[in-house]
Formats: sequence, structure tokens, C-alpha cells
Amino acid sequence: MEITRFVFSLLFLVMMTVGASGSPKHWGRKRVREPCKKLVFYYHDILYNGHNSKNATSAIVGAPAWGNRTILAGQNHFGDLVVFDDPITLDNNLHSAPVGRAQGFYMYDKKDIFTAWFAFSFVFNSTQHKGSINFAGADPMMNKTRDISVIGGTGDFFMTRGVATLSTDAIEGDVYFRLRVDINLFECW
Amino acid sequence: MEITRFVFSLLFLVMMTVGASGSPKHWGRKRVREPCKKLVFYYHDILYNGHNSKNATSAIVGAPAWGNRTILAGQNHFGDLVVFDDPITLDNNLHSAPVGRAQGFYMYDKKDIFTAWFAFSFVFNSTQHKGSINFAGADPMMNKTRDISVIGGTGDFFMTRGVATLSTDAIEGDVYFRLRVDINLFECW
Amino acid sequence: MEITRFVFSLLFLVMMTVGASGSPKHWGRKRVREPCKKLVFYYHDILYNGHNSKNATSAIVGAPAWGNRTILAGQNHFGDLVVFDDPITLDNNLHSAPVGRAQGFYMYDKKDIFTAWFAFSFVFNSTQHKGSINFAGADPMMNKTRDISVIGGTGDFFMTRGVATLSTDAIEGDVYFRLRVDINLFECW
Repeated sequence: MEITRFVFSLLFLVMMTVGASGSPKHWGRKRVREPCKKLVFYYHDILYNGHNSKNATSAIVGAPAWGNRTILAGQNHFGDLVVFDDPITLDNNLHSAPVGRAQGFYMYDKKDIFTAWFAFSFVFNSTQHKGSINFAGADPMMNKTRDISVIGGTGDFFMTRGVATLSTDAIEGDVYFRLRVDINLFECW
Repeated sequence: MEITRFVFSLLFLVMMTVGASGSPKHWGRKRVREPCKKLVFYYHDILYNGHNSKNATSAIVGAPAWGNRTILAGQNHFGDLVVFDDPITLDNNLHSAPVGRAQGFYMYDKKDIFTAWFAFSFVFNSTQHKGSINFAGADPMMNKTRDISVIGGTGDFFMTRGVATLSTDAIEGDVYFRLRVDINLFECW
Repeated sequence: MEITRFVFSLLFLVMMTVGASGSPKHWGRKRVREPCKKLVFYYHDILYNGHNSKNATSAIVGAPAWGNRTILAGQNHFGDLVVFDDPITLDNNLHSAPVGRAQGFYMYDKKDIFTAWFAFSFVFNSTQHKGSINFAGADPMMNKTRDISVIGGTGDFFMTRGVATLSTDAIEGDVYFRLRVDINLFECW
């Protein structure tokens, strides 16, 4: 019978298709590279230099044998390890109301040019955002933009992953810098 | 024919449904927030203070210019960086048989209140668990509970991700603290 | 009618199957443990010891109270924190052309045997690879092989996750070691 044959073909086709999509995922394929959330923030780092203890938001806590903890070391600050608790703002004004804190550390890690390595969290506790976003990665500062990883999150950012693009928005001697952070989250829960 | 029409409707319906579920995943949606594994541990940190080298499980290795490596610094220990190798136990008794080691570091990172930033691993090598769980995140210690990220794992915890909730179970001056860690894993392989 | 009953059974079967595969993912199940990318590299660490500033690729920047920043501390170097910018090569020859840089830090974290904790990036900028791979985890160095987590990536390694197996390929006193890194990526985008 025509119709029976048709139904069997249909059955076969359906089984193949469903079978394929229902099989264990092979994670190497077919992810959509479209962010599920986009955020832009600025954060402001004022490094302790012996004279600014009131305003400083960060301090050198480790240094190589040839350095100290008040002045950034020679050789492009290689080995200087800085702990920070920096205000996060929505625009590039240090005096805007902070919407959270950037907390963690960076270390200068190259002798011949400026590069750094960052691990830190954005910690939010406002009406707009509650929770944290955790970051880690290399920051080759001499590049206009640098990508680091969003390695996790909590609260509003539960289990998130993504990429954050850093760019230096301002730098004033060895004391102040301001980073712009474009956060693109590709896994949201 | 009735039945032919029915079969075509069926075909259409099936194609639509299968098509939708077979298309590239958009990762921003529809995750189940139910842990695939839950674990509870305690770990015990005994900080070196110049007099307890036998029992100490951690030591200050970085400090700001105004601090040293034997006594926690002023300003809520801002900038103190501590390396630890702490015993993990199943209950809150320091003298229980350890089931693993918590290894990594924390740093105090705020001048006006106590907050810290942690990156560490739980390392297991027993009949019950083999492998490691890796953590990172901000620990605003004054809160009763704090969430950090589980950023990866190996062995029994291969590729895992999740959230760990820290709570301070005991604290004795500047020398001893005990954390309870409620681990909720949301990605298991 | 036979055929009607058959079609209804088919409809039911299809609905069940499609329903199951189309429902929200429970992430705890059925992942394929087959790498989507495999890479092998070597990296070379030459520790500053007061006499090799020209060749050194790393330096002690934190140490416990009983140590200093020129000589690795007693008690299996417990507490020594080292920042590095190490060349990555494709084979085990220090003098091969580097294909990238390993940048980050490690700390020795156990008093009774050698163990370390690593957080770093592989940074590539060549015709072959552009981007970075970020790592974190415990390194119990006395084991022949040790697994750490690939916690993220950028550029060619956008959003990747996986496991990297470290093995000590050579060690020369306190100054030089070479690690082989077998990277197995299980999430590729």
C-alpha cells in the first residue's frame, strides 16, 4: 500500500533526525557566538605611592628582589604584584557614583614591555545588579584592546561565562589608570 | 484522503519541532538550576604568626609597604597575601581525619572592612574522591554566606562547574579560621 | 483501522522522543569525553637567583617571613610566589623558536613535599595561533602527571574549556625547569 510505505519512510526519517539531535552532545560544534548579555563598565585604580594613603585603592604587596613596595620596579615593573579594591562606574568619571567594586590583583609579568596578568571579581550589590562576575587572563597593555576570560559568576550572573575586552581609557603616571571593560557573556543561566 | 492529510500534518509538525531542537544552541536560555552534585566540606586555616611553625598551615607571603609577613597588617589586613595548604574535613572538627587538602591563596582586599579574594583547589586522593575542584572569587567575609565560582575540575570532577557557598564556621583571633563550603555543581560530565 | 492506529502510535512515539530532547537541558548528563582539540607544548622557566638577570624568565616576588626573594625558601619552598614570562616551544629544546609566552604565577604551597599552585595564560600571536588559553589548578609536582583546568580562552581559543596535563620534562637545580603541557579541549566554539 502506498500510504503504508509513506508512513514507514516518515518513521525512518523521524528516527534518524530525532536520533541525531537526541544523542550525547559533541561540545565542539555549532555554538552561537552571540552574547546573551552585554555590559560596559569603567574601573579606576589609584596605586599607593607612600603619599596617598587616603585616596589609594591599590597597593604593591609583592615585588622582585630588585624592587620595593612603594615604587614600581624597573624592567617594566616585572614582578610587581598589586592588590586592588577599585570603584566601578558606569561612565569614565572617577567621581561618578560607584555601582560596584573591582577586587583582586594584577601583576606585571614581562621585562621588555608592559604586560600584566589579572584575576579579579566585579562585586555588585545594588538595586540594578546583585552578585559577582569573575575574570582571569593576560593583559598585554600595549595593545589597544585585550581580551580576558569571564570564568564564572554568582547571583544575577550565576554560572555565566564570556569574554571581557579591556581598553586603557586613561593613565596618569604611575598612580592612576582607568580601564574600560566591555563584557560579553555567552553563557547565561 | 483523510489519512493522507493527517500524515502530512504530522510530518509538518514533526519537522517543525525537530528542526527547532536540532538548530545551533543559543546558550543564553533554559538551563536547569538543579545541582548535578552536592558536597559539603570544612577547611581549617592556621596562620603562621612567628610562634606556631609546627602547626601553621598558611603563611603571609605578600604585604603592603606598611605591613610585614608575621603580623596581619592594619587597615583590615588590606594587601596581605596568604598561601595555604589547609586540611579538609567532613565535619567541623580540626582533628578529624582529613579527606583532602585545600591549596591556594587568599588576599585581604579592602581597607574599610574585611573582605578577601580566594583562588584555590580542593585536592582529593582517597578511595572516596580522586581529583581536584578549582575555585575563584570574592569573599566579602562580613556576610553570613558568600558565593564563589567553581571554575573547573579534574579526575572525579572532570570539567565540572558550579557555585560554592562559603560560611565562616569559627574564627579565633588572627590565627585560626574554619570555613564551611557548600559545593553545588551544575555541570557534571 | 490498522493504519490509523499505527499513525497514532507513531505520533505518540515521536512526541515522547522530541519532547525529551527538546526539554531544558539537565547539564549533569551524557557529555562526550572526546577532545575537540588537542595541543602539546613545552615551556621553560629560568628563575632569577641574583646572578642570571639577563636570562631569567621568572622571579620570586613573595616569600614567607623565613624566606627571601633571591633564594627559594626552606620547607620545600612553602610560600614562595613566582611571577613568570616563559617561552613556549613546540619541542623540548629551550633554544627552539618560541611560539608564544606562558605568563602568570605559581606558588609553592606545601611544607612537607613539593607542590605548587598555578594560574597563567598561554599567549599566542603567530600565524598559527592568535589568542590565549587560561589555566588554573593544583600541581602536585611529585606525581608524574598532574591535571589542571583550562578555565577559558580568547581569540582562536574563544570560550574554550578543558584539562591540561602537566609533566616535568626536565629540572636543573633551583634555576631551570621545563614542563610539557598536553592540552585537551572539550568545549570549543
